[in-house]
Amino acid sequence: MNFDNLDANLDPNLDPWRHRYADRASFLKSSEIRALFAVATRPEIVSLAGGMPYLDGMPFKEMGEKVKELIETRGTEMWQYGAAQGFERLRELVLDICGLEGVKSTKENVVITSGSQQALDYITRIFINPGDVVLAEAPNYVGALGVFRSYQARVQNVKIDKDGIIPEKFEQLLERLDRAGERVKFLYTVPNFHNPAGVTMSEERRPKILEICKKYGILIVEDNPYGLLSFDGSVLPSIYSYDYDSKLGFAPNVVYLGSFSKIMAPGFRVGWMVAPNGIRDKLVLSSESAILCPSNASQMTLVTYLENFDWKKQIRKFREIYKERHSAMVEALGKYLPNCTYNDPTGGFYIWLKVPEGINTKAIQNECLDAGVAYVPGRGFYADGKGDDHMRLSFCFPTPEQITEGIKRLSTVINKY
Amino acid sequence: MNFDNLDANLDPNLDPWRHRYADRASFLKSSEIRALFAVATRPEIVSLAGGMPYLDGMPFKEMGEKVKELIETRGTEMWQYGAAQGFERLRELVLDICGLEGVKSTKENVVITSGSQQALDYITRIFINPGDVVLAEAPNYVGALGVFRSYQARVQNVKIDKDGIIPEKFEQLLERLDRAGERVKFLYTVPNFHNPAGVTMSEERRPKILEICKKYGILIVEDNPYGLLSFDGSVLPSIYSYDYDSKLGFAPNVVYLGSFSKIMAPGFRVGWMVAPNGIRDKLVLSSESAILCPSNASQMTLVTYLENFDWKKQIRKFREIYKERHSAMVEALGKYLPNCTYNDPTGGFYIWLKVPEGINTKAIQNECLDAGVAYVPGRGFYADGKGDDHMRLSFCFPTPEQITEGIKRLSTVINKY
Repeated sequence: MNFDNLDANLDPNLDPWRHRYADRASFLKSSEIRALFAVATRPEIVSLAGGMPYLDGMPFKEMGEKVKELIETRGTEMWQYGAAQGFERLRELVLDICGLEGVKSTKENVVITSGSQQALDYITRIFINPGDVVLAEAPNYVGALGVFRSYQARVQNVKIDKDGIIPEKFEQLLERLDRAGERVKFLYTVPNFHNPAGVTMSEERRPKILEICKKYGILIVEDNPYGLLSFDGSVLPSIYSYDYDSKLGFAPNVVYLGSFSKIMAPGFRVGWMVAPNGIRDKLVLSSESAILCPSNASQMTLVTYLENFDWKKQIRKFREIYKERHSAMVEALGKYLPNCTYNDPTGGFYIWLKVPEGINTKAIQNECLDAGVAYVPGRGFYADGKGDDHMRLSFCFPTPEQITEGIKRLSTVINKY
Repeated sequence: MNFDNLDANLDPNLDPWRHRYADRASFLKSSEIRALFAVATRPEIVSLAGGMPYLDGMPFKEMGEKVKELIETRGTEMWQYGAAQGFERLRELVLDICGLEGVKSTKENVVITSGSQQALDYITRIFINPGDVVLAEAPNYVGALGVFRSYQARVQNVKIDKDGIIPEKFEQLLERLDRAGERVKFLYTVPNFHNPAGVTMSEERRPKILEICKKYGILIVEDNPYGLLSFDGSVLPSIYSYDYDSKLGFAPNVVYLGSFSKIMAPGFRVGWMVAPNGIRDKLVLSSESAILCPSNASQMTLVTYLENFDWKKQIRKFREIYKERHSAMVEALGKYLPNCTYNDPTGGFYIWLKVPEGINTKAIQNECLDAGVAYVPGRGFYADGKGDDHMRLSFCFPTPEQITEGIKRLSTVINKY
């Protein structure tokens, strides 16, 4: 099996339009994850690659009934154009969800998007001129790196340890960038159960990171798809919560991103942002320009779910499932790959595995696929080509038995070296 | 009622981030249509403003039942992530729709988007550097102008008459732009029942416009949301059809845009593109970067509709409805506004009305809203501030009675001047 072919586009010399594209088009690149999609869904492969949530436990039968009613009674609204900012009732309801993590605001400051990915696209669109700097934890979410690159941002790696961004080093970095006259536009951070690093920013560091950003006039983009998915049910206050200004009704220095993709279902492509007024206005105009409006059908279905089902209980159920799968992976790693190291996550979907010296996770990928296991090689999570000594393992989608089998297969390749 | 307030953002001086935005952010502007949305939906107003399709005749009851089944039986797929290019079965089925207008291809060359608006966003994203030129019929679709502006394209007006783009003048224009060394990236055209002009490009001119574009190496972006909605059921061959190369399996010089928004329902936000291989690859990467993937829930619902219902019959029904409404508008215009002129459309949603000299359609907008009728002032449809002597009237959404009443109200203001 030759995985590399999957990533190969046509010979670009065959494209007669190749001299006509915009500069930014050359920065569009297929991500390591998406390129794996076709292979990783083959039945003989145990996929520890994707970030697909487990959905089997959703109330499909009851939701089928409710959606039927919805179409029958409100079909003309559900299937019609809506507002660029999003469906009003959904903008209210998402505040109940992120309110659990200390995000207070009003529906006026909420903008609905086609998943958090589109929120990132809009934020980058309105802030980044080619050459502007985005600060981002390294390693970083591969989808974010793709967006930043597509707008020709320069990504400046921010060092993390097991408690997230290190305040002292972060401040030194900002000082240095400031002296160099760099146009730093925002810090992009995934503070909870970081993708891929599995790290959570400690409670103590959150206000410190905020203060440093305020001192240097840097906006924080807080991306939080996993925050409610800790294994023990604990929830940390968002960075947003430390910046909230009750007179304003929002946090003036933070754009907060939330998503239904990990706590309910990604197939609707619905996420949200909570943003300060001025930025919110530009984000709404971005939505209008990019898609006119998000899907009423998707949004009203989610309202139906939130209003009719015990979504908090469902999240607790998901937590239990992911906790069990995480345990299975940790156990298998201890048994089959004792020479690999990792920071053990307390929630989320991923383990960021460091392989023994001398092994290149991209180089052994095809061999591992032949052995029947898929993972995401580490290099996709760095803007600068690092990461070949790491791989991302997901425990969200496969069963505990599949996870054990997958790690066992992985070990047959890794332990050869 | 002060309509202007609706369009007013916050005092931008109050936004502390105002010095940090990207250059392109200053080109984001609320469209005349979207700004009207709130006012035009008030019950006392007859809205001749929006392009909302009539949906009451859709089979909501039967679709409710089918979607219920779909969620019950294929919920885990429907609510999961999908492919960036779009759901495979839908990519096949849309070719049955645009096949009616001579668009042949395979599912490999189809890319699903969140409505045609997103297709335009992607195309502009991959082709336009700031300052590049887009050719577009003037007046033009306001949503397209918004996208072009947001990527800092310069829009070059292309003259049209009652048969669409005038080949001789078009060629002179390209000649002039070529001599001036302009970087012309593509022609954007709405050949059928043009929004807002109501004009259809004649069959005779279509191959001519194609040949001129080929001569100058200009890509054609053919946007065709209304093509199946002629009043008499006639259908013209797409520009794409003249360029189709059976050896390649696609048209090498045309990106064709189709949409469910006008022939079925806009609330799913689903449209599609048919593109040459090289461009297709870049569009798929754009989709991945912007939203990861379109909504499986929306796409599978549309597959269910197309596979289970007589969608061609439904389109015939829509045609009858729009034909009747168009007649009501033409009759009312003859009775109440005999001094206004227009090119009578043979399909679509719009009449582009020229008001008597001396009347400015933007200036009298608030007075007309006070009289209980909304329309879209003409200036939004030009990139260069023209159009104040025109307004766009839609006959798609209001009933024939409302249309008559709306034109009557309009006449009470216009006939004063």
